[in-house]
Amino acid sequence: MTSDEAWLRAMCAAEAGLARAQARVGTVPAFAAEVISQVARDGCFDVAGIAARSRGAANPVVAVVGELTAGVAAVDAAAAEYVHRGSTSQDVLDTACCLVIAQVVVRVRQDLATVIGALEELADRHRRTVMAGRTLTQHAVPTTFGLKAAGWLHLLREADSRAAHLVRRGLPVQIGGAAGTMAAYLEHARLHFGRLPADYAANLITAYADEMGLAEPVVPWHVLRTPIVDTAAWCALLTGALGKIAVDVQSLCRTEVAELSESGAAGKGVSSAMPQKQNPSLATMIRAAALQVPGLAATLAHCMLAEDERAGGAWHAEWQPLRECLRLAGGAAHTAVELITGLRVHADRMRANLEITRGAIVAERLSARLTPQLGKTKAMQAVAAAAGRGGALADALAQDAVVAAVLDAGTLKTLCDPADYLGAADHLVQRALDVE
Amino acid sequence: MTSDEAWLRAMCAAEAGLARAQARVGTVPAFAAEVISQVARDGCFDVAGIAARSRGAANPVVAVVGELTAGVAAVDAAAAEYVHRGSTSQDVLDTACCLVIAQVVVRVRQDLATVIGALEELADRHRRTVMAGRTLTQHAVPTTFGLKAAGWLHLLREADSRAAHLVRRGLPVQIGGAAGTMAAYLEHARLHFGRLPADYAANLITAYADEMGLAEPVVPWHVLRTPIVDTAAWCALLTGALGKIAVDVQSLCRTEVAELSESGAAGKGVSSAMPQKQNPSLATMIRAAALQVPGLAATLAHCMLAEDERAGGAWHAEWQPLRECLRLAGGAAHTAVELITGLRVHADRMRANLEITRGAIVAERLSARLTPQLGKTKAMQAVAAAAGRGGALADALAQDAVVAAVLDAGTLKTLCDPADYLGAADHLVQRALDVE
Amino acid sequence: MTSDEAWLRAMCAAEAGLARAQARVGTVPAFAAEVISQVARDGCFDVAGIAARSRGAANPVVAVVGELTAGVAAVDAAAAEYVHRGSTSQDVLDTACCLVIAQVVVRVRQDLATVIGALEELADRHRRTVMAGRTLTQHAVPTTFGLKAAGWLHLLREADSRAAHLVRRGLPVQIGGAAGTMAAYLEHARLHFGRLPADYAANLITAYADEMGLAEPVVPWHVLRTPIVDTAAWCALLTGALGKIAVDVQSLCRTEVAELSESGAAGKGVSSAMPQKQNPSLATMIRAAALQVPGLAATLAHCMLAEDERAGGAWHAEWQPLRECLRLAGGAAHTAVELITGLRVHADRMRANLEITRGAIVAERLSARLTPQLGKTKAMQAVAAAAGRGGALADALAQDAVVAAVLDAGTLKTLCDPADYLGAADHLVQRALDVE
Amino acid sequence: MTSDEAWLRAMCAAEAGLARAQARVGTVPAFAAEVISQVARDGCFDVAGIAARSRGAANPVVAVVGELTAGVAAVDAAAAEYVHRGSTSQDVLDTACCLVIAQVVVRVRQDLATVIGALEELADRHRRTVMAGRTLTQHAVPTTFGLKAAGWLHLLREADSRAAHLVRRGLPVQIGGAAGTMAAYLEHARLHFGRLPADYAANLITAYADEMGLAEPVVPWHVLRTPIVDTAAWCALLTGALGKIAVDVQSLCRTEVAELSESGAAGKGVSSAMPQKQNPSLATMIRAAALQVPGLAATLAHCMLAEDERAGGAWHAEWQPLRECLRLAGGAAHTAVELITGLRVHADRMRANLEITRGAIVAERLSARLTPQLGKTKAMQAVAAAAGRGGALADALAQDAVVAAVLDAGTLKTLCDPADYLGAADHLVQRALDVE
Repeated sequence: MTSDEAWLRAMCAAEAGLARAQARVGTVPAFAAEVISQVARDGCFDVAGIAARSRGAANPVVAVVGELTAGVAAVDAAAAEYVHRGSTSQDVLDTACCLVIAQVVVRVRQDLATVIGALEELADRHRRTVMAGRTLTQHAVPTTFGLKAAGWLHLLREADSRAAHLVRRGLPVQIGGAAGTMAAYLEHARLHFGRLPADYAANLITAYADEMGLAEPVVPWHVLRTPIVDTAAWCALLTGALGKIAVDVQSLCRTEVAELSESGAAGKGVSSAMPQKQNPSLATMIRAAALQVPGLAATLAHCMLAEDERAGGAWHAEWQPLRECLRLAGGAAHTAVELITGLRVHADRMRANLEITRGAIVAERLSARLTPQLGKTKAMQAVAAAAGRGGALADALAQDAVVAAVLDAGTLKTLCDPADYLGAADHLVQRALDVE
Repeated sequence: MTSDEAWLRAMCAAEAGLARAQARVGTVPAFAAEVISQVARDGCFDVAGIAARSRGAANPVVAVVGELTAGVAAVDAAAAEYVHRGSTSQDVLDTACCLVIAQVVVRVRQDLATVIGALEELADRHRRTVMAGRTLTQHAVPTTFGLKAAGWLHLLREADSRAAHLVRRGLPVQIGGAAGTMAAYLEHARLHFGRLPADYAANLITAYADEMGLAEPVVPWHVLRTPIVDTAAWCALLTGALGKIAVDVQSLCRTEVAELSESGAAGKGVSSAMPQKQNPSLATMIRAAALQVPGLAATLAHCMLAEDERAGGAWHAEWQPLRECLRLAGGAAHTAVELITGLRVHADRMRANLEITRGAIVAERLSARLTPQLGKTKAMQAVAAAAGRGGALADALAQDAVVAAVLDAGTLKTLCDPADYLGAADHLVQRALDVE
Repeated sequence: MTSDEAWLRAMCAAEAGLARAQARVGTVPAFAAEVISQVARDGCFDVAGIAARSRGAANPVVAVVGELTAGVAAVDAAAAEYVHRGSTSQDVLDTACCLVIAQVVVRVRQDLATVIGALEELADRHRRTVMAGRTLTQHAVPTTFGLKAAGWLHLLREADSRAAHLVRRGLPVQIGGAAGTMAAYLEHARLHFGRLPADYAANLITAYADEMGLAEPVVPWHVLRTPIVDTAAWCALLTGALGKIAVDVQSLCRTEVAELSESGAAGKGVSSAMPQKQNPSLATMIRAAALQVPGLAATLAHCMLAEDERAGGAWHAEWQPLRECLRLAGGAAHTAVELITGLRVHADRMRANLEITRGAIVAERLSARLTPQLGKTKAMQAVAAAAGRGGALADALAQDAVVAAVLDAGTLKTLCDPADYLGAADHLVQRALDVE
Repeated sequence: MTSDEAWLRAMCAAEAGLARAQARVGTVPAFAAEVISQVARDGCFDVAGIAARSRGAANPVVAVVGELTAGVAAVDAAAAEYVHRGSTSQDVLDTACCLVIAQVVVRVRQDLATVIGALEELADRHRRTVMAGRTLTQHAVPTTFGLKAAGWLHLLREADSRAAHLVRRGLPVQIGGAAGTMAAYLEHARLHFGRLPADYAANLITAYADEMGLAEPVVPWHVLRTPIVDTAAWCALLTGALGKIAVDVQSLCRTEVAELSESGAAGKGVSSAMPQKQNPSLATMIRAAALQVPGLAATLAHCMLAEDERAGGAWHAEWQPLRECLRLAGGAAHTAVELITGLRVHADRMRANLEITRGAIVAERLSARLTPQLGKTKAMQAVAAAAGRGGALADALAQDAVVAAVLDAGTLKTLCDPADYLGAADHLVQRALDVE
């Protein structure tokens, strides 16, 4: 989907779409548009040869046009005159680029739909699966796995809604000609009709957008790179969201924690040296993708600084980083399907780990409970002292005369049950589920 | 607006807003919320001392709460018990952060409105100001300064519309407590009322968002950092857009080009060594800002990989880059007001530079014009050969027998006038002006 | 050390050093150099005012020279004529910059010396402190804490040796004048002596480098930014090295792992909400620094693309990122002193955690041991099957007839002792200690 | 050189080198090492299949080992038992990685040698080719093209000397086994010899480094990634240096400036739309490379934060960015050969452009010359006023009574000749040439 072949096909599709659009506004004969479309779709191209010849013009379009023209000429010499008519490399490459982006976004959204569905189920099923909330590596207060899954769900919904927005209006065709004035397109029309028809430029833009299934640009965007940086920002948001899930999974898969594990499908997570190991390899691949996208997105943002009507380098520097962004985003989303639908949740282990601190994980609650009688500062000190003595927190507090005067042993025991201190976890899960 | 003092005030405002929200849902007495609000707004704080003490907790909130509590206690000891009730450092800092972002966005949009207005005027006034379109540093085909300004206008409109979207729904209060369950907030409510009122959590969230003038979060976003990366992406888009304008201005200010100059207001663009120089220092400052933001935005994207309920470092690494992003975005937008409203356009020089290539700048047109008779390839060759001979293109072509057989000298002269080959420039300017 | 005040002092020192260098080659009177040096060192400057006036020239030097000249004139009007003689903003700012870098490097190396000493001791003391080696979050094979500390030691020695190299030859004075030809310096000399003395330029460069305690440049480096990118690369290496230590500490501080803890000095690691918590706040601050430097270093690398004799923006974009790099590197190194000298190692807990997998952590060994008799593939399968059955690995293997035929129960027990499978850990620790 | 095939071969070479090293220390039979080496070198591998199977283990080594083992078994079943003995994926991949880096560095240095030679010649030949020095886009003071070339030369010498340093000691073999203790290597030795020979680990490391032609590591560097970040920093320095040259070339190629042009070899710099254009396409490709490397290098610096004995993601995220860094660095260096050896210098145009400001380019000199009589401030004002009046600077100054009292018209004319104000340009060129 982001291979050399895919880019080549997208460039051919951009040329074909242009010919059909020009046919619709009357400047290219219908038969020529048909032949060009057919060769663009079905013709054989020498991908490696095109790559090699791209160095000369510092872009691949000159070579692609050459191959396409030859292919069309082999079918119909007259049609060949209409390939790339009035056009310029960047019109073709930018339009192809938006086409590839749109295809990747569709595929990613399919994968996201699956992941989002699986997360809704996880969030709902584990609303009452109590586990330790952890901050700065330490047990903090109890939470639920349902709330954790609800947070992941929320992140991915955000990434998905931005994808929808990007496709709906953010990916325009490019049609500006050599320097963004559409001059050659209009010159050919003037020659063809003897004068320039009214609204020719507007009609050509509309027809081209329609043929390509992409948005209409307000103005040519050769050096106004919003569509590219928006795409990059979306890739970074998406892989960041998936990366957050991945680091959570890794944290909870640790040998000592063991609250989650990956599905362990055949051949996954294998070590070449250690036969016992079952690595969280899906989370690993997602995290690896998430680590790579921000730097690529930064490069694409830098490329906005494109002087004049086409910059010598800023445009060319976009191609590979954009392709990598798409590849990593698509790969991470696809891997996430496998990760989330196969995720194994060990609720018993979550419950067991909660006991490690012997009640200290609800110290905050005890501190709050003692505040009315002892005041905020003294309450915190009493609880901190008790937590510092080791042993079960309820017992340690019961031995503090000041505390014991306020709360009896039974009450202390109840208050120290982590499952009784979940705050609004259930409500928050519901909020995440209720969002459409 | 992004100074230490501004951040401190925003943190205090977050604490005060929380107290008022809790007062609205009945868990803090009205008088306490009032005292806290008043001290938060008017109290004197030791900014340097707070900074120094921030190292201990690895965040500034513990120190701020200490100072605020002392200030409130000095007014009313009972009220001091209600400062930061049920809260956690991150609730305060993240809410303060969204407050600062919102303030910066408002200010930036004011500046953008001025710049956009000035660009509309420039685009309209210079619709027919012909100049060289340049690609890869070389004259390509003619364009107009109006179209260039229209492109800048379009970019800034995009940046502005994203700002509107960000403020409208992207900046929520943070209210999750220690690990995102809101447990301590609810515990205090339970203590206060004897039982937890129905919908307490939902009501508290709504009240807090309302008090702060920020959005309601779906779930606590301690480790779901969409608001931060969205802000960073916006800053990168904005400074990228302004940076594009800056590199265009620089390109056109070059001594040899001299088509634009900055206003040269007193003291601007001065050199410490060369008395004759008038540097485009406003464009320089904007480009410098635009070069810095992508790296900072990448750091913020990396920080999405925040494990557990709060990561040890990923949150802390956000503060300075976010602040720098906002500072650079705000500074660049403000500088752009001065740059664009004072920009001097030298239309005569644009026209003069157009003549440098003696007609070769319309070679594309001649090539198109000769295509019907000569075919695409031969037409390009004839024009390239003529352009390569030096001299005026019209004359060189007139001496080519093949060309002369098709186009007479008078027609060639007309076709070689750059002002006659502007394509859809005027239409495209209108498209940009018509948006909104 | 990287404050506004520090930069101002460094700029003044650069001006003073230049005056003394010019005095040594005879073009500035000795008394003037003395007055300039004294005012530069002891004078009062309006830091805020200078910052405000920096916008005009897009750099702070014009304003600094103004204040310095006024200060010198107040002492001796004649001396004031010699301030900044023949110089340019960038000569002063770049030289000041190298001075600040050199000061930070000295301070960082002092801190590194302490950390390196502490790590040598840790590596040596814990040569036989067995712990689980972990890969992709899972127990892999046993290792020692000594070897882990030796790895940290090695990383910091690398960072330190690069610092030595940077200071020794990487930080030159800047002395090129307006466009790198030293023309104004030489013009003043020609005026002063009536003709230009032989070797004047070479002698001035040497004298300036000597006065500043910095390296001699081969050529002016206004737009040849090796010193800046080398510094940035060093900061990234240093904070990356410290960041690796920090994430290891965090991993081993997790509540469930608890093999390390920070010193817990008073006020460190405090939570505003949870009285029981002892956060690894030093590791948190270091990791936060390490997350920020790569993006800043990337910006500085981008700034190498500086066209002409001074680029409009690429130079200006260096200042803040460089300052942040130095601040973060210096802060992280200083925090590391506290982290490493106070680090508490819980060897008993390391030993206990090793038992979690009940021998599976040495599965690799058993697989190797069975290979001669069973072949590589079958050996791995037998061990994987036994590890998969749960229970102690030695027992599970003893029940496998094929295995039992080769290894008796006693041998299996010995082979399954993690402390008996440490490979070359001790040798590797020694290698790290032996490096000078 | 960085293709899938090249990486596969490097991995095979790492396996073969390991077998030979183990043969040298006696734990692998000589015949097995020979067969493994031969199959690794000459065998046919299914690159696409390996790529597909890499997902399972989240790295390609498991699949490569599988193919290699099968290939060896087809030749000699007994030898197959010795493939990858005691090893782990990362030992193979990291060693392969250093091998690829070393090969790229050798090739880059060959290209750099050619470029450096060409620059020495350019610097020498154009010592007296006067041109405008430009700062912030404006003519500043005169310089020479020789000095500009000398600056480029200096930058590339720096990049080359760092490459030498990197190869000499920065690229070690990786040999640590599953978690960096070399345990399995030693276990196999213990089995083979019945006991572990003295110095076995040290000898194996030495033999492996020797077989591979790489450096000996102090300790295994699985999670101590200095070699990778050093390589990335070098790539950024190199492409930054080449990128600086590229933006200078672009600046001087502009249609209005026209002081340089690219060689225009057949097919280079062609436009698909504009027959007259001769784009600086080599500089374009180099600048495009230089824009991409900093973001990739930042990602690699981030990957230093690798927790435990192998991080789940931080290692995996290195592969593609490293490969891209090498590809871009190698490509840029190779393109630079063509750019610099074919560069055309238009000295006449340089001279002509110098006259554009009619003497204002030496305003600094006049200001210096008038300072002794008028004082610094008044001198600058007089010159600025004259420069501001337009016309030739010498004439304008001659009309200023205060100036005329000090300098006669003839002297003014001489002083205003740009070729007479070159400062130490010639000396600085010589310094750059004299460096070895």
